[in-house]
Amino acid sequence: MRLEIICTGDEVLTGKTMNTNFSYMSQKLSDVGLSVRWETTVGDDRESLLQAFQLASQRADAVIVNGGLGPTIDDLSQEVAAQAAGVELVLNDEWLTRMEDFFRRRSRVMPPNNKKQAMLPTTAEVIDNPIGTACGFALDIGKARFFFTPGVPRELRRMLEEQIIPRLLAKSGLQTIIHLKRFHSYGLGESHVDSLLTGVEALVPDGSVKLGFRAHYPQLETKLTARGADMDDLRRKLEVVEGEIRKRLGNFILGEDDQTLEGVVLAELAGRQATLSIVEMFTGGQISARIAPLPGAEAIFRRGIVARDLAEVCAAVGLEGAASEGEFTPQTAEAVARAAIRHTSATHALAVLIDLDQGADRIEFGGTICLAIAAAGKVESRRSRILGGREWVRLGAVELGLDCLRRHLQGLPVYERTDFEKA
Amino acid sequence: MRLEIICTGDEVLTGKTMNTNFSYMSQKLSDVGLSVRWETTVGDDRESLLQAFQLASQRADAVIVNGGLGPTIDDLSQEVAAQAAGVELVLNDEWLTRMEDFFRRRSRVMPPNNKKQAMLPTTAEVIDNPIGTACGFALDIGKARFFFTPGVPRELRRMLEEQIIPRLLAKSGLQTIIHLKRFHSYGLGESHVDSLLTGVEALVPDGSVKLGFRAHYPQLETKLTARGADMDDLRRKLEVVEGEIRKRLGNFILGEDDQTLEGVVLAELAGRQATLSIVEMFTGGQISARIAPLPGAEAIFRRGIVARDLAEVCAAVGLEGAASEGEFTPQTAEAVARAAIRHTSATHALAVLIDLDQGADRIEFGGTICLAIAAAGKVESRRSRILGGREWVRLGAVELGLDCLRRHLQGLPVYERTDFEKA
Repeated sequence: MRLEIICTGDEVLTGKTMNTNFSYMSQKLSDVGLSVRWETTVGDDRESLLQAFQLASQRADAVIVNGGLGPTIDDLSQEVAAQAAGVELVLNDEWLTRMEDFFRRRSRVMPPNNKKQAMLPTTAEVIDNPIGTACGFALDIGKARFFFTPGVPRELRRMLEEQIIPRLLAKSGLQTIIHLKRFHSYGLGESHVDSLLTGVEALVPDGSVKLGFRAHYPQLETKLTARGADMDDLRRKLEVVEGEIRKRLGNFILGEDDQTLEGVVLAELAGRQATLSIVEMFTGGQISARIAPLPGAEAIFRRGIVARDLAEVCAAVGLEGAASEGEFTPQTAEAVARAAIRHTSATHALAVLIDLDQGADRIEFGGTICLAIAAAGKVESRRSRILGGREWVRLGAVELGLDCLRRHLQGLPVYERTDFEKA
Repeated sequence: MRLEIICTGDEVLTGKTMNTNFSYMSQKLSDVGLSVRWETTVGDDRESLLQAFQLASQRADAVIVNGGLGPTIDDLSQEVAAQAAGVELVLNDEWLTRMEDFFRRRSRVMPPNNKKQAMLPTTAEVIDNPIGTACGFALDIGKARFFFTPGVPRELRRMLEEQIIPRLLAKSGLQTIIHLKRFHSYGLGESHVDSLLTGVEALVPDGSVKLGFRAHYPQLETKLTARGADMDDLRRKLEVVEGEIRKRLGNFILGEDDQTLEGVVLAELAGRQATLSIVEMFTGGQISARIAPLPGAEAIFRRGIVARDLAEVCAAVGLEGAASEGEFTPQTAEAVARAAIRHTSATHALAVLIDLDQGADRIEFGGTICLAIAAAGKVESRRSRILGGREWVRLGAVELGLDCLRRHLQGLPVYERTDFEKA
């Protein structure tokens, strides 16, 4: 089955918005064995949209169109879809009611121009959007089945996974079933993991297991795609490869499949009825923000304390003595973590202190991190240096702090060297 | 002049690599008044490349092709360019010498497969790449001038700016220039702003000013694109429309062009040599994380305090009395903000208290927000209710808190009703 994607919108075409929707869709589709052959981006103009739809309809069996379903005059997808298919637009009463309900549940009155979102080509099959007012739909243009999706990322993602991928798989008639297994790691770069995993695909000799990576600093996702005749066949194939990956990546694996680093940390704390306080500097509250809002965190997250200045950090946890010394060491981080436990009556504390380089942002800009984890009389600490610009340092320090806390909670060494550190 | 871009490579087509080269090129080109009309992404296969080159050559006057100039067998751009133009590939001795020098200067011997990078179509004009071995080139295919560029971002960027943009400007003989003006607002939905701005385009009767929107909840970007003969013409056209937009959107405009909400807040505080402390609950540290890591914030951001529990919040700012009452009111928010000023010796404090609904996440899940801003004996507060799921409430509360702080600092009412609130 030949599959194409058309992205629409002046925002994307002018480069003002990075086309994250495209890379998201293409990856999700390849995860289930559907590969995208051609991508087109056009702006919000009728002529280009029509031409893009016509060209794709001549080449492809299925086409996903993203964007242009909004309520404003520059949203043209329904109108041009109808034109390309040679049909009229009609008001879909069911969707209009859905939209009115949507606004009513939010105690708002639907603005009149939203009615436009319920105008669909007569031959369209509605594709549900349970979290927005943009109505997805599918229809045939030429020999291709077109799927129209909203530009809002969370609406697109849900529609793609729940509605469109099942339809595409049915259309493609793929005989085999596919399973995607994911491992999340922090601390090893893509080429390092790639070489650590040399030969694991060959553990299943028929070539039906493929390894892939997705680097989203600071985490790396290692993806294992397996094809099989049925679930038993799949499980047999995956078992041996999964075991080998766990062995080779070891402590660096922070979670699998839908697990997240913050979710794993929260579950470990919940399992021992612990409470957590977090002390931060340049990370600015971002470490707390990964844990505190999670469902269930209300019983575990005790307090977050943020200050840019070390003396202010010490004062905030009642450590005035250390503050006057102001020494930036792992020992100070340990003292801060211990003091945070006393000061907030938590069972666990994570302190991530950062001494940032001076001057303007640049690629060699770095930060030195002294972090400590205190719990029940035990305290562990480490020092780390990260280079790569302000934002790189900030992101890296957030992940390093959370991952060291995970390692501590799982009884693993917190001081294992990562690829992102300068010696 | 009609301009298109073709991006090549399996990495980009599969979504493994985000297509940052495209958005970079498109923005740079529009900065000089050259707008990209169509973008195509194809993988490393001859058939797709040839078809993409042929289609673009029929539509466009100029085409930039990115990628496929490397030394490996999947780099096909020169070969397919020659095929599309109906000419042969020949060895360019000059570029071969350049490459050999390039390797010699780095004390390396040129690998034999790099010779492929000096094979160019007979009709190609060489476009210099002073920092890499991929030779840029231009040639005519059909009626269009094609420019072939390397996939390595820093090589592309230099070649685009120094070599290709001057050639495109000369070719276009551009009569008009373009300017993009942006307004950022919080609190009004896209369709509301669209209807508030009805008729503003018509203030410039020749149709050369266009309005557009980019919604990224909770903020909305309103964009004004103007075309003119010269800067004076542009300024004259924009002045009237910009003034009208400022009048109609009023206090909801939080910034223009490259300004950010957090940047505006920081600048207001810096201007009065103020210091800021922030107290948060369900937002989990995210409000602090918007301000604290900014350059310059080290002198202004005093302390961030996060707790999920109201009694814990009160304890953290030394308000034990109020804690025992635990009443969730704007008055409690005011007391917390005042106490935060005393407790952390800041000149300003923002307290964003949230009473979250119970139960599982759902679209009607909401939160009640009581926020207060205290400064120099003055305190302001407001109550707000946001519905739409946990993440929607969290994002909305972060923006509401920061925007009320902006309003306070700019002497505007903090209690103006937004579209995102339930009555």
